[in-house]
Amino acid sequence: MRTGADLAAIRERKPLVHQITNYVVMNETANATLALGALPVMAHAVEEVEEMASVAGALVINIGTLSQPWIEAMLLAAKAANEAGAPVVLDPVGAGATKLRTDTAKRILDEAEIAVVRGNAAEVATLAGRQAEIRGVESIGASDSGADLARAAASALGCVAAVTGPVDHVSDGEHVVAVANGHELLATVTGTGCMSSAITGCFLAVAPDRPLEAAAEALIAFGLAGEDAALGAKGPGTFHVALYDALYNLDPETLDARAKVER
Amino acid sequence: MRTGADLAAIRERKPLVHQITNYVVMNETANATLALGALPVMAHAVEEVEEMASVAGALVINIGTLSQPWIEAMLLAAKAANEAGAPVVLDPVGAGATKLRTDTAKRILDEAEIAVVRGNAAEVATLAGRQAEIRGVESIGASDSGADLARAAASALGCVAAVTGPVDHVSDGEHVVAVANGHELLATVTGTGCMSSAITGCFLAVAPDRPLEAAAEALIAFGLAGEDAALGAKGPGTFHVALYDALYNLDPETLDARAKVER
Amino acid sequence: MRTGADLAAIRERKPLVHQITNYVVMNETANATLALGALPVMAHAVEEVEEMASVAGALVINIGTLSQPWIEAMLLAAKAANEAGAPVVLDPVGAGATKLRTDTAKRILDEAEIAVVRGNAAEVATLAGRQAEIRGVESIGASDSGADLARAAASALGCVAAVTGPVDHVSDGEHVVAVANGHELLATVTGTGCMSSAITGCFLAVAPDRPLEAAAEALIAFGLAGEDAALGAKGPGTFHVALYDALYNLDPETLDARAKVER
Repeated sequence: MRTGADLAAIRERKPLVHQITNYVVMNETANATLALGALPVMAHAVEEVEEMASVAGALVINIGTLSQPWIEAMLLAAKAANEAGAPVVLDPVGAGATKLRTDTAKRILDEAEIAVVRGNAAEVATLAGRQAEIRGVESIGASDSGADLARAAASALGCVAAVTGPVDHVSDGEHVVAVANGHELLATVTGTGCMSSAITGCFLAVAPDRPLEAAAEALIAFGLAGEDAALGAKGPGTFHVALYDALYNLDPETLDARAKVER
Repeated sequence: MRTGADLAAIRERKPLVHQITNYVVMNETANATLALGALPVMAHAVEEVEEMASVAGALVINIGTLSQPWIEAMLLAAKAANEAGAPVVLDPVGAGATKLRTDTAKRILDEAEIAVVRGNAAEVATLAGRQAEIRGVESIGASDSGADLARAAASALGCVAAVTGPVDHVSDGEHVVAVANGHELLATVTGTGCMSSAITGCFLAVAPDRPLEAAAEALIAFGLAGEDAALGAKGPGTFHVALYDALYNLDPETLDARAKVER
Repeated sequence: MRTGADLAAIRERKPLVHQITNYVVMNETANATLALGALPVMAHAVEEVEEMASVAGALVINIGTLSQPWIEAMLLAAKAANEAGAPVVLDPVGAGATKLRTDTAKRILDEAEIAVVRGNAAEVATLAGRQAEIRGVESIGASDSGADLARAAASALGCVAAVTGPVDHVSDGEHVVAVANGHELLATVTGTGCMSSAITGCFLAVAPDRPLEAAAEALIAFGLAGEDAALGAKGPGTFHVALYDALYNLDPETLDARAKVER
């Protein structure tokens, strides 16, 4: 794990992170990306997604508010990113809640090469064919432990699986990394999961050949920002605002020492 | 009125509140819902709205940024919610400003069973066939008083009407409840009306058989959060942030004593 | 330049500023418009844009997240605004980054009468047929100086060109106004360029016959708000919040003295 060095690389190279994401969090994931030090760009038209994805350092696909034209654009963009060698993150928001979401997430996983799937336990369990319960886009529970689920999902899906929760688990099907950084206030703000996917894209852009590490590092960095933001927060509003400040002020020198990681 | 008890029920049961709302305020209404203690979910595809609405505790339809596919989805979702017994809130943003908005709001009221219409004076007056003036989505004035308008609209539309303004008026066509909680800074932030509709959905989800009370309680709770947020606010930005903190920190024990209500 | 007097006029007349803008910043530009003192309205359906644009004081078109139906609506709205005599601002977000964006911006400029184009150096250079480099929606550089570029673009496009950056340059093809107000934190928050376009619409609405001045005044006012917001900001999050407070608290009496302008 070299979270500090990779964050420094993000700030130096300012990779373009193309995001096709949901309407609810677009501003939030763009601002999180920018605060961390990368360059976000949102583009979803079938006429331009391939052009944009091919010049991006990473592509983040988030299915939080789907409709048919967007699904088509996601597939086109993912294939263009694959062709250009840009890693793709999939955030399967609400997989398991409706057939459209489950089917779309599976279709993207089938038709394109995904580097990292980042979701909550219920979403990832749904895709991996395991038991889980979801209410809307909130995971209510899964039968596997986080570590088992991450490993099983990575094997089943053929990519890195990052399962976030009170403790996050990231696996490539063999190794499992547990990340205990974070704060419970993260669950009181909508789109923090989506932000963590965007930040996964930022780290992947500078470490495309180390997807397991990049995904874990993103969760360490985001979790640490959450911890910093919670200091002095009076509720979800002030916490949300402080989260951007915290991402911006993350010190690459201290990240590795502050990481709560177990392999 | 049992605002405190109903808020406690929201926090305990965490009802799913399905929202088909406008692009401008999606993040804001999701965060207000979450801060209050319920679970928001946004879904607008015709392929999934019925599935989502049927498992929701309430459905909130907001016509702030319409287009044809969204109108179709709103109608499908409303009917599915009706079928499943989930109460529906309609926020007729900009009714009276364009024919599309007026016609769509009327069509939803005609084709589905709406529990509560929550709007400003001009929007509600337009739907009730009364005189009013609107500039964009801002009410400039209505010829009826708030109390008269709420009562007349409830009778004309066959549902509870909640007319918000400096003092809010809620009526079922017979009784009128006036709620004087709130703060003038609420008018300086876009989407606070939309947030109050989302919160109406949260209260309705735990009190589906008491729509008049639920609608009034929502405005009491939101108004009190506005009062709390105004303390120390330096303008619309800090007020907006403090509003989420205030919703999160609302104390069920004190709500009923702080309510400024007249029947 | 009469920034103070024009801001006072905005607050007194509360012009309706119709915005067809991107999903990422809709809430932000609406709140900036409202905080300044004007009334924002978002509407993008082909069925209603002409009706809305014809009653607006100004129309702001922003191509940040395009798709075919939106392009059609933008053209309809721009022509309706032209017909009604309402000035139109074009924000060509990402022109130069994809063919769709470049072509759409050019098409709008061709088919409608635009009062002011407000963009970064790379976007404006692309439209004016000059050399530039863009990464996503971020200008990496242009071969002309800001003043030369603004003048050349205004001449080539037949409208006022406002090129924003560390120092902004506004030109009608003959005169060039340089505005040095602002703060580097503006570049750390997504959508601040879009906000400056929305605010350009607000000033144009009260000074439709003085587009060069209105565009410069908007950048003065927005730049000053940025300076005020930076005081005490701890990063992009607190800066962003303080920006709305600062717009709301701008004092018309002091604006002209604080303006850093060179003609």
